[in-house]
Amino acid sequence: MKPMEKRYAIGVDVGGSFTKVGLVEPGGRLMAQRVLPTEKEKGFQHFIRLLEDVVEQLLHEARLSEQQIKGLGIGLPAFLDREKGWIHQAINLGWQNIAVKEDLERRFPWPVRADNDANLAALAESWSGRGRGKSPLLCLTIGTGVGGGVVIDGRLFHGFSNMAGEIGHLPVSQRMWRCHCGKEGCLETVSSATGMLRLARAGLQAGFSSSLREERLTIQELFRAAAQGDPLARSVLEEAGEALAEALAIVSLILNPERILLGGGVSQLAGDWHLRIHQVFQAKGLPRAVAGVEVLPAFWGNDAGMIGAAALFLNEEETAG
Amino acid sequence: MKPMEKRYAIGVDVGGSFTKVGLVEPGGRLMAQRVLPTEKEKGFQHFIRLLEDVVEQLLHEARLSEQQIKGLGIGLPAFLDREKGWIHQAINLGWQNIAVKEDLERRFPWPVRADNDANLAALAESWSGRGRGKSPLLCLTIGTGVGGGVVIDGRLFHGFSNMAGEIGHLPVSQRMWRCHCGKEGCLETVSSATGMLRLARAGLQAGFSSSLREERLTIQELFRAAAQGDPLARSVLEEAGEALAEALAIVSLILNPERILLGGGVSQLAGDWHLRIHQVFQAKGLPRAVAGVEVLPAFWGNDAGMIGAAALFLNEEETAG
Repeated sequence: MKPMEKRYAIGVDVGGSFTKVGLVEPGGRLMAQRVLPTEKEKGFQHFIRLLEDVVEQLLHEARLSEQQIKGLGIGLPAFLDREKGWIHQAINLGWQNIAVKEDLERRFPWPVRADNDANLAALAESWSGRGRGKSPLLCLTIGTGVGGGVVIDGRLFHGFSNMAGEIGHLPVSQRMWRCHCGKEGCLETVSSATGMLRLARAGLQAGFSSSLREERLTIQELFRAAAQGDPLARSVLEEAGEALAEALAIVSLILNPERILLGGGVSQLAGDWHLRIHQVFQAKGLPRAVAGVEVLPAFWGNDAGMIGAAALFLNEEETAG
Repeated sequence: MKPMEKRYAIGVDVGGSFTKVGLVEPGGRLMAQRVLPTEKEKGFQHFIRLLEDVVEQLLHEARLSEQQIKGLGIGLPAFLDREKGWIHQAINLGWQNIAVKEDLERRFPWPVRADNDANLAALAESWSGRGRGKSPLLCLTIGTGVGGGVVIDGRLFHGFSNMAGEIGHLPVSQRMWRCHCGKEGCLETVSSATGMLRLARAGLQAGFSSSLREERLTIQELFRAAAQGDPLARSVLEEAGEALAEALAIVSLILNPERILLGGGVSQLAGDWHLRIHQVFQAKGLPRAVAGVEVLPAFWGNDAGMIGAAALFLNEEETAG
């Protein structure tokens, strides 16, 4: 290896509270990482200054020069215009109309690429996770909402207006609870963390017997109770899992993915929940569209966004286009 | 132009009763065409002999030598393994387990490619119809069933098991009529020709006032009555159109197409039916996923399959991969 060859990339994953910054090797391994507070209320220019310090430290400690870095990828919980690198709106950050790419390229010596965090998690799985060689690949990010990313032949697939894989709003729940999108019965009204907690509260209020207590109900608590056999907690996971499986059966008729991965905070707590989702998916789907298709947990946990952001520069298929 | 340059392609569209064979120019224009009876009950080897004669005539009349032909594309109403050029099953033809590509390449001096007819109709629209420059493009084929084809960046997208775009089985009808696929409430139970006739019969049997008569009910008759203001015929088109629009709103969250085209026999009869479908699609869809997306009639009518089959050799994006 020539010492100055550009081989590494920086991956940044911006969250509502914390931002993760990683130095990533060509094979997808994380060399080093840092976490910084996003301090979103101080705005994007303030955030860039925090980021500059952290990136400088990371390079210094890894003894890398800036010439060895191919680029900086950044993932945001946002609707954005990828080509312009422009955030329309990032609800959880309270940021809008920000020229992410332009602002960052002014402060860093590298090209910058930005994408939605759920998309980057899918890219991470395709590049160096549990989706390698699988196409089309669908990767869900189950957290506050239900997001999705699609990778076809190793490259992110965005659709016309960056809405490809936005399965959180598929109409699959019979509860017909109103979603923040304005419609009723959306997948994420029952199968996100928020949705599952709402299902649990509805059960408690209806008088279901349970060890769960409304005043200290968390998603961790819900999965713990289910693992211990609590009937309400189990019925919540069953209902949320069925809605997910129903949505995945629908996706199998349109995108016909080869593999489906469940990622995000909720799925990290979920133990063998994916087995049940896989089973219902196989039962509900059209046989020819689901045969041989596995629903599995994602490989990358909290690091998915960082790895995927770096993959925007390191993944061959992605950089070829 | 060098006289022996390979510029043309032969497109074959196999239907249950008739097969269309066309000689297609590089720009997508049909130079000449023939129709032959498929005589499906005599089997595929018999069909090949019929096809040989017709192809020979076409070349002779167009004064083309076999060296000027790039290849022969064939579309079939079938589930097939494209890479092997193998028909698993073609229900409407009664053919199964046929090595289409191998058998045809033994009899013709050109490479052969085979695909599903709904996919080829979509490719025809992308190449030289109303879908040019639009990506992703979804093209529905509304006839006996509801089929679909997807084109991304000018190339057919098949998914893992050639089921991409098979939207006929999306669960969108509240009637919950049983579909031949074994599920209930599938789009094609109400929005195909068969489905719309069933809706009309159900209305007549329920005593709806109508000029339609059950004993001479055809899809042509249904659209004619609707155009003349018949209330039952209009309510059938409204229900079938709403189910279609609902399915398209679902697709917009997964595939996020830039344009949606309605093709196939039914849509050729349908006058301005697409306007109503577009309207409901826009109302039901998530605004960010449907903004700027038009639902339009396909450009190619009965010739779509032939043109698309030839495009397997003449369309640059398709041949690049």
